[in-house]
Formats: sequence, C-alpha cells, structure tokens
Amino acid sequence: MNTVIRLDRQPAEHISASLKINISRLNQRILELAQVGAIDGGGVCRLALTEEDKQGRDLVIEWMKALGLSVSIDAIGNVVGIREGLEDLPPVMTGSHIDTVRTGGKYDGNLGVLAGLEVIATLNDAQIQTKHPIAVAFFTNEEGARFPPDTMGSLVFQGELDLQAAYDTVGIDGTTVYENLKTIGYIGEAPVGHPKIHAFIELHVEQGPVLEHEGLQLGAVTGVQGIHWVEFTIDGISNHAGTTPMQLRHDAGMVAMQIATMARRLVKQVGQGQLATIGQIKFTPNLVNVIPNKAVFTLDIRNTDQAVLDHVYQEIMQFAKQAALDEGVHLSVRDLAKSAPVHFDNRIVQHIENLAKQSHLSVKKMPSGAGHDAQVISEVCPTGMIFVPSVAGLSHNVKEFTHLQDIENGGNILLKVLYDLASGEVI
Amino acid sequence: MNTVIRLDRQPAEHISASLKINISRLNQRILELAQVGAIDGGGVCRLALTEEDKQGRDLVIEWMKALGLSVSIDAIGNVVGIREGLEDLPPVMTGSHIDTVRTGGKYDGNLGVLAGLEVIATLNDAQIQTKHPIAVAFFTNEEGARFPPDTMGSLVFQGELDLQAAYDTVGIDGTTVYENLKTIGYIGEAPVGHPKIHAFIELHVEQGPVLEHEGLQLGAVTGVQGIHWVEFTIDGISNHAGTTPMQLRHDAGMVAMQIATMARRLVKQVGQGQLATIGQIKFTPNLVNVIPNKAVFTLDIRNTDQAVLDHVYQEIMQFAKQAALDEGVHLSVRDLAKSAPVHFDNRIVQHIENLAKQSHLSVKKMPSGAGHDAQVISEVCPTGMIFVPSVAGLSHNVKEFTHLQDIENGGNILLKVLYDLASGEVI
Repeated sequence: MNTVIRLDRQPAEHISASLKINISRLNQRILELAQVGAIDGGGVCRLALTEEDKQGRDLVIEWMKALGLSVSIDAIGNVVGIREGLEDLPPVMTGSHIDTVRTGGKYDGNLGVLAGLEVIATLNDAQIQTKHPIAVAFFTNEEGARFPPDTMGSLVFQGELDLQAAYDTVGIDGTTVYENLKTIGYIGEAPVGHPKIHAFIELHVEQGPVLEHEGLQLGAVTGVQGIHWVEFTIDGISNHAGTTPMQLRHDAGMVAMQIATMARRLVKQVGQGQLATIGQIKFTPNLVNVIPNKAVFTLDIRNTDQAVLDHVYQEIMQFAKQAALDEGVHLSVRDLAKSAPVHFDNRIVQHIENLAKQSHLSVKKMPSGAGHDAQVISEVCPTGMIFVPSVAGLSHNVKEFTHLQDIENGGNILLKVLYDLASGEVI
Repeated sequence: MNTVIRLDRQPAEHISASLKINISRLNQRILELAQVGAIDGGGVCRLALTEEDKQGRDLVIEWMKALGLSVSIDAIGNVVGIREGLEDLPPVMTGSHIDTVRTGGKYDGNLGVLAGLEVIATLNDAQIQTKHPIAVAFFTNEEGARFPPDTMGSLVFQGELDLQAAYDTVGIDGTTVYENLKTIGYIGEAPVGHPKIHAFIELHVEQGPVLEHEGLQLGAVTGVQGIHWVEFTIDGISNHAGTTPMQLRHDAGMVAMQIATMARRLVKQVGQGQLATIGQIKFTPNLVNVIPNKAVFTLDIRNTDQAVLDHVYQEIMQFAKQAALDEGVHLSVRDLAKSAPVHFDNRIVQHIENLAKQSHLSVKKMPSGAGHDAQVISEVCPTGMIFVPSVAGLSHNVKEFTHLQDIENGGNILLKVLYDLASGEVI
C-alpha cells in the first residue's frame, strides 16, 4: 500500500527556509470533512462511533491512502497512516481526533489530523524523504461526549485503559463501544499500542482566549494543567425565611456560596495561572422563602504546578470546614476527577518556540487548559503541542473559528517540527 | 339559629381570675379536624377548595352551630359564626384559616379557629354574655398553596382584592377559584366585607424558633415584617473552565454568589432583626467545567422597619451593580413581591402582654415573620395576635408541633383578650 518514492534526504536548513504547506488544500479538506455531520450555524455533530463518525473516518482514510500512507486500524479503532522513512526506525507521529461534541466546530481535533495530512502532501510534492517514518493518526473518542472517558482511544493505545473495559463502556444511548465499533466496521487488526513511536506532536486550536487576547500567533504548549474536580454536599436545616432569625439558621446554600466566593478570592491572591470554577450548583428545596437544607456544588481547580494545586485545594477545604462549623451544617466532599499536571518534552517545546521565532511569528510558551490526546501519548514518548488562536476563545461551539492565516502558520510550524523530529534532530 | 341564652354581664376581673378554657375539649377538636385530609407522619393535606377543605368546613360549621353561633358564608367562602352580644354593636372577631399547604401540620390556622370555638364553648358553659358580639371566622385560602395570592379570603373581606379577580384566579391544576367554590358549595350569600368588626385577634403557632429558643411561653405580636422579594438575573459569557484565565472571565454564577454572601454579611452588621434569605438559585448551563453564562437567584429580605429594609435593599443593589461591572456581566432585577411592615394596635399588643404577665406566663413582644389573615384585617380594625411556641420552629411540615400546655396558655389568653375586647375595654 505504501507507494512513496524514496529520495535522498534533504538537508534540514533547506526545509526550514523554503518549504511551505498549501493552505488552500488544507482548508479544502477541513471544509470537506466538516460537511460530514454538518449542523446549523457552521458546526459539526460527529459523535464517536456513529454513522457520521464512520463516514468521516472513511473519508480521511481515503485521503491517507491517496497520499501513499500505509493505513492500519487497531482494536479500539485508532487509525494510523505511515509514510515510510529512510531507516527502519520508529515513526514520528502527529495527529489528533475527528470525533466532535454534539455542537462542535470544524477545527477541534480535525485540524491536527488534516494538517498532518497536509504535511505529508507537502513532503510528497517536494519529494522529500525523512530518516524516521512519519505517522498521521486519529484516535477514537477523544471527546468522551458519547462514551466516557474522554481520550479513550489514546488511553487504550498508551496502555492506561484496558481494551475490554473500553469495549464494555455503555454510552449515553445505552449501547456499548464494542457494538458500535463493530457496526461501523472499525475493529481493526493492528495490535494495540503499535507502532512504538519516536516522538509525538499535535497541532490544535487553543480553545481559549489567551493567544488572541495577547495578540500572539502561536503557542508552544508546555504541558497540560493538573485538574481536580470536587463535589461539595452541604446538609443544613430548612426553615421559614421570615420566622428564623439569622443566628438560628443552618443555611446549606449560604455555606456553598461562601466557599465558592472564597475560592475565587483565593485564586486571585495565589495567581500563578491558578484557575477555579464553580460551574454547577443545586439548592433543595430551592424556594424563594425557604432556607435551603441542602446545597450541592462543584469546584473545578486547575494548575500546571501540582504543589500550587494541592495548596489551593487544602486552603479551600480548611475554609469550607470552618464555614460549615460556623453555620452548624454538615459538609461532605468527593472527588469527581483528579489528574496530575503533564509536562511536555522541553526539547520539543523549545524547538517549537525557536522555529516560530525564526519564522517571525509571535509565540509564547503556555500550558493547555483542556485535555488532549498528546497529554496521554506523552506517557510513552517525547511529546509536544502547537496551539493556534481561537477567535473569542470559543470552543465546543458551532461558532468555533480560527483564521486561515493562523492555520497556515500552525501548519508550517508543524511541517518544520515534524521534519526536524523525523530527521533525528531535536530528540 | 342563635340559641345562646342571654345572661347578665359578668365583671371582667371575675373572668380574668377564674375562667379557663377546656384544653382536652380543644385538643379533641384539633385532632378530629386533623383527620380530614390526614397524611403520613401526622400531617394534613387540605388544600383550599378541595373536597377535603369542604369536609373540614362542614365539620367546623357543624361545631359552630352546635355552639349556638349564627353562621354566615360570604361570596368568597369566608365563614363567620357570631355569638350575640348584649348590645347591638360590631362584633369582636377571632379566627384564622383551616386550609393547609400540601404537607401541612395540625396547628397552623386550625388552632386559631378552634381556639375561638373553645372560647365560645367556655363562655357558654359559664353562661357569660358580652357587651359586643363575638365572631369566630375562618377565611378562604390563606395559604395560597393552590391559588395565588395567599390570604385571598381576608383580602376580599378587607376590600383590597376584587371578588371577580379572586373568582377568576387559576390554580395549580388549571381550574378557577369560582369553579371550585361552586363545586364544594361555598359561594355564600352574605355580603362581602360584612360584618363590620370592632377588633380582631388571632391566636397562631409561631412558625419559627424564637419563643422556644428563648424559653418563652407566649408572644404578643407587634406586627408583621415588611417583605421584599427580588429576583436577580445575571448574564455573563460561558467559557471553558480550563482555558479561560481568571481575569478574562465574565462569570454570571460568581457574581450571583458574591451578591448573596455580601447580603449575609450586611444583615449581620445591620442587626435590628433584619433577615435575608437566598432560597433559589439556577446556573446555566450548569456543567462542572463550563463558566456559567447565566445565573438567576432570589433574595428575600424582611424587617419590621421599612427604613432599615429599604437601606438594606439599596446597599445590596449598590454592591450588585459594582460586582456586575467588575466582572463584565449584565445585571437585571425585578421585584417578585413587596409589602410594607404592618403594625398591630398598641393597646391590644400591650393588653396581651399584661394579661400574660398577670397569668405568670413568660411573654415577649415580637414581630411575626410569616404573613397572616390578621395582617390583612388590621387594615379595617384594631388588631392583635398571640403566638404560642412551635417546637424546633417547624412549619408547613407534617412534624409541626406545639405542646398542649402552650396551646392551653394561648387559649386562655385568647379567652381573656376576647372577653376584655368584647366588654368594650382595651378599645
């Protein structure tokens, strides 16, 4: 299946200076893939392992084959297309995912996969061969919008998630991953966890407002924040809002709100990129003139520094316990999710920044606020990510948008990084 | 229909010293009425104008007639039983309501009506006649649990609510007040707003924890707090909890919680019986990892002093506007309810306190936190209320409870106040 013509290796400096991706070809593929599962407002609904996902997969595989890639599919439906290298070495991989959330955009995930194909096309056109093979992959069910957890395919690839456990996962519509993989014909024969890879690099839209806000063109992603999700449940006593003096109240709702506002004050003091979000709250009985006897709310805290994250958690917990004690209510907490910060390979991060500067693109080293396949793959090989700006930081939204110039910049840096990694430089 | 035997008037000092209600007879009536619409846990469900309400009404009217009262029913179904006086004067009225909330207790409302009947029975037994007639009333739909507004019957009686508007009110089950009044046969022929009354006195359970907490036996109610209900709607911008730096957020939920916690701090500083309750809150989209773009919450503030209430409202609004500005979110507010404080007749309040002290009962002057028929009737004649303790302050709850001794104390004070008012003393 591999039809690439072997050529002599070109010197790296030549590549860096002159080679460019074809942005209109890349954009055409983005728009064509976005037609599969297109929804009103310019968005895409291509939930994992649905008929739309199958159509998207088929289309991308058709493109892979047309570019001469040797395509394999593993048992969880991860798809890898490999362009041979000059030597029998592990490939350098790029890629992302093509599944979307229910009201997703055109770029999230898709950009990383299609920019990988565009790099292949560019190298093909220039008849450039690399020392290491180059692989373009898309991983199954990165979004987790239909089946938990997110990054399912990369977790199975990396070895953290057992294949059978993934197969048995029941989705929001009551059917399993296995049934749906079988229905769409994507239980492949490639062994899970193969190929072993030399390095991984993912291009992605930022999904946040930082680059746009700071007027920057690129992000050299340093890693992914650690995440701690905590659910607080506060049990107090319901009483009449008109007949219960303030000092005799056991107001569950008030304690919830005191903890939430304290968390905001604290992260403002702490700084250091610390985030805290109270996204979900529920009062019982939730009536105008009844003191809530129960309040449940969630806290989402994130930081790239585990020590800061732990400190913030402990400070909030200490405050929460005291606030509960003062009000005479019962406090209980449980973790909904907890993941340690991931740090990408310094050499790759630095190389991305250097390449951007050489190309006169404004760039900053920054963490990723969202989770990505690269975060999972970083457990098995040196990994990096490139961010391009998201207009207004919109993500998981039909209005998600990234300017063509920014996509072109990101694609060209991806080309250079992949070439340098595949040349055995950097790592 | 009036079968009361006329006797010479007894001197007041005689009454005050020796006459007592029969607590076991009163309690028997309380328990018997509580069988109508009885629900699990010892509570009562007798929503206004239901079949259960009709059965309760029929039973109380049967008791009224057996006590020799002349019963009339007006066009909104208010029922008044009159015991003739020695002179052709407006009656002194006592009473309350017999409708309940869906999960109500035995005492709320019922106690005031049945204690009124017990006073009549006691006067009958002692063959004591009074200068003014004495009326015992129960007003339609005090709770407002099936049809808004609450205190509907007394509002029509008093003249604030138009009869036709009350008739046309659609309840939670889609039927009108008129249809249901007709079905249960309680559209009476007595003219609305009659009889004109000399004074009104209502015995009621406190529905709050103050008397129990302070170890007191009786409350001489000074009036009803002013109430201001405000709904705050905050519109911000939804964004990803992981990718949006704190300083770029427009978090509607956070502003809601900041306003709520500020209100709590403020009322603690203000003191003076000021209350503030945030009973209801809703975030949109209400997801763990999404910054809320919308938050709606309610504020219930109450005080007996309109100036303090207004001051607190203004302080909260000033803070709210600044908090919204700081976060870059849009704030809008609307009043859900607003009523001015009601002040009962000082002579009656003082007389209740004096009588309690003479009977060696511990008593305090206190406002009512909840609304009552007496608050409405106070617009048309000198009015007072007597509170007896509610165990744990529980109200609108099947576990609502008041000790028999407290009911007896309250009943005896009601007897004395009614006698004194009907003797033309006090007022």
